[in-house]
Amino acid sequence: MTAGLIIAVDAMSGDHGADVAVPAALDVLAATPDLQLLLVGRGDVLRPLAGMPLPARCSIVEASEVVGMDERPRDAIRRKKDSSMRVAVDLVKKGEATACVSAGNTGALLATARFVLGMTPGIDRPAIVSAVPAAHGHTVMLDLGANPDCSADNLIQFAVMGSVISTDLYGIDRPRVGLLNIGEEDIKGTDEIREAHRRLGAAPINYGGFVEGDDIFSGDVDVVVTDGFTGNVALKTMEGVARFIGSVMREEFTRSALRKIGGLAASPSLKALKGRLDPNAYNGASMVGLAGVVIKSHGGANRAAFASAVRVAVAEARKGVPDQIGELMARVSASKDSAPSPSG
Amino acid sequence: MTAGLIIAVDAMSGDHGADVAVPAALDVLAATPDLQLLLVGRGDVLRPLAGMPLPARCSIVEASEVVGMDERPRDAIRRKKDSSMRVAVDLVKKGEATACVSAGNTGALLATARFVLGMTPGIDRPAIVSAVPAAHGHTVMLDLGANPDCSADNLIQFAVMGSVISTDLYGIDRPRVGLLNIGEEDIKGTDEIREAHRRLGAAPINYGGFVEGDDIFSGDVDVVVTDGFTGNVALKTMEGVARFIGSVMREEFTRSALRKIGGLAASPSLKALKGRLDPNAYNGASMVGLAGVVIKSHGGANRAAFASAVRVAVAEARKGVPDQIGELMARVSASKDSAPSPSG
Repeated sequence: MTAGLIIAVDAMSGDHGADVAVPAALDVLAATPDLQLLLVGRGDVLRPLAGMPLPARCSIVEASEVVGMDERPRDAIRRKKDSSMRVAVDLVKKGEATACVSAGNTGALLATARFVLGMTPGIDRPAIVSAVPAAHGHTVMLDLGANPDCSADNLIQFAVMGSVISTDLYGIDRPRVGLLNIGEEDIKGTDEIREAHRRLGAAPINYGGFVEGDDIFSGDVDVVVTDGFTGNVALKTMEGVARFIGSVMREEFTRSALRKIGGLAASPSLKALKGRLDPNAYNGASMVGLAGVVIKSHGGANRAAFASAVRVAVAEARKGVPDQIGELMARVSASKDSAPSPSG
Repeated sequence: MTAGLIIAVDAMSGDHGADVAVPAALDVLAATPDLQLLLVGRGDVLRPLAGMPLPARCSIVEASEVVGMDERPRDAIRRKKDSSMRVAVDLVKKGEATACVSAGNTGALLATARFVLGMTPGIDRPAIVSAVPAAHGHTVMLDLGANPDCSADNLIQFAVMGSVISTDLYGIDRPRVGLLNIGEEDIKGTDEIREAHRRLGAAPINYGGFVEGDDIFSGDVDVVVTDGFTGNVALKTMEGVARFIGSVMREEFTRSALRKIGGLAASPSLKALKGRLDPNAYNGASMVGLAGVVIKSHGGANRAAFASAVRVAVAEARKGVPDQIGELMARVSASKDSAPSPSG
């Protein structure tokens, strides 16, 4: 473990590369007095963007390569050992950084992080977790795409990891966990889901039972657990609906001169609406379950969005999320061995 | 097959029972000169609502029982042989109606319809299909909940059924079909999805490849195919997002006196927006793949929404959707036997 709060930023990946990553990371640095920043990438690219001399608490770690956005995970691991992504993850492994952030390709980052860092004890597979806006503030949701097929064990581990994220990042005491299903009756869903449901009922977490897709937003639960296929589809569906509603609104508010005037009069409300639903404010998905903090920024993130991802890294590093997950998982495993069989 | 256009309406089921079903069905009857309506249920309940004498082209078919909204499918089949739901489906089986509509419980309706009507040749399992608003008009999506686990064969059959619905109900010539996945690369997704992808590439339908959740709304495809678990979650997620955005809008537009004035000025646009996204206008999910037209209305449908479901039944009855599905499925099966293995 490192002494201070040190974040390694892969400053070369993502659609906009260093042009976005460097200023975004420096924004967070300026606002976070105890943060030390390691910008990872080609010094000749990063130095002009970071300023000379470099800001206080900021240094550059050289990495000569960049993992392409379409590069296969295994190729990234085998052939790009000096990529900005790999070097950023290596810094976490070596204890020279407390967390890392990358806007690089998801598959490569996940595979690299798992290969380099390994897993938190008790967790079999990493999951991608993020928060979405909901009636009561935020709902933490996982898995968002790392594991298309999930066993009951995986789902239970996701419940543990989601609980820790909800508490550590959103301050929820005893977060209520829902398991995504297509009906609230015990008979629906796959075998894996029914088994996870039965076992979660006996686990020392605040399990609230089955939920459906609309409960992601209802505020009834703080954490929604599902497999990576369903979670990814749900996440993309949300983005699609929100974008579609936005485009219909733009059409309706520009349909005539009178409608445009109405739009002007409504613009404070519309701006507030946009702000509350702004996906940039929710950028920064955690790859949880690893023996280290790894945050994935959206590849197309702008400066504000990338900064949001860096802030997630800061928050998880401060709380020591991987250790918290290991501790809660140990309690859940212990309870499994001693608990009587629940009635569901 | 029946000579005319005769729709059997289960007039007792749903949250509001006959109070909604009867006036809604009569609304469609009044607007559809060649329609004959069979209201199925208890005459003493239906007659006062339908008027005395009954409107022209409307008759009542007695059924003494009602399937409960939480009743198990097998109990509905075994013990409620004189339910309004069962009798409505029986009328289709006997050729005394061309289609039936029910707002009763989904599981019971699906099981009853499958038990009584059987399947269209070439289709193994019924699927629930509906249209959702999208950039280009509508996207037809299935399965929305009938089959949590799907084989490649099921997915291919869904593609056929979705194509027929898109053409027959929305007038799309050679509808473009997408297979829902979590990435557009061939390597992602489950084995079943990859196999369906490979085989759809060689089928005589307009297959457009993998799509992601946001493509449901993008207008890139006319039909989105997925398993019933994922489809149901995506549908409920859409409903949840739309409701959440609506509630945030109401909050923002009532936050202050000035905001309320802005809301008034914007109300023509907001009303138009609401109209375009109104879920009532999209009520009426088809249970396709059966040897007969069966339309499921939302249990909580109001008069306008239930009428929309009856109109879907009218449209599918006119087009003879089950026969169209059988014919396209036969062409797809024939091509499978003769086509060379595609490269995907």
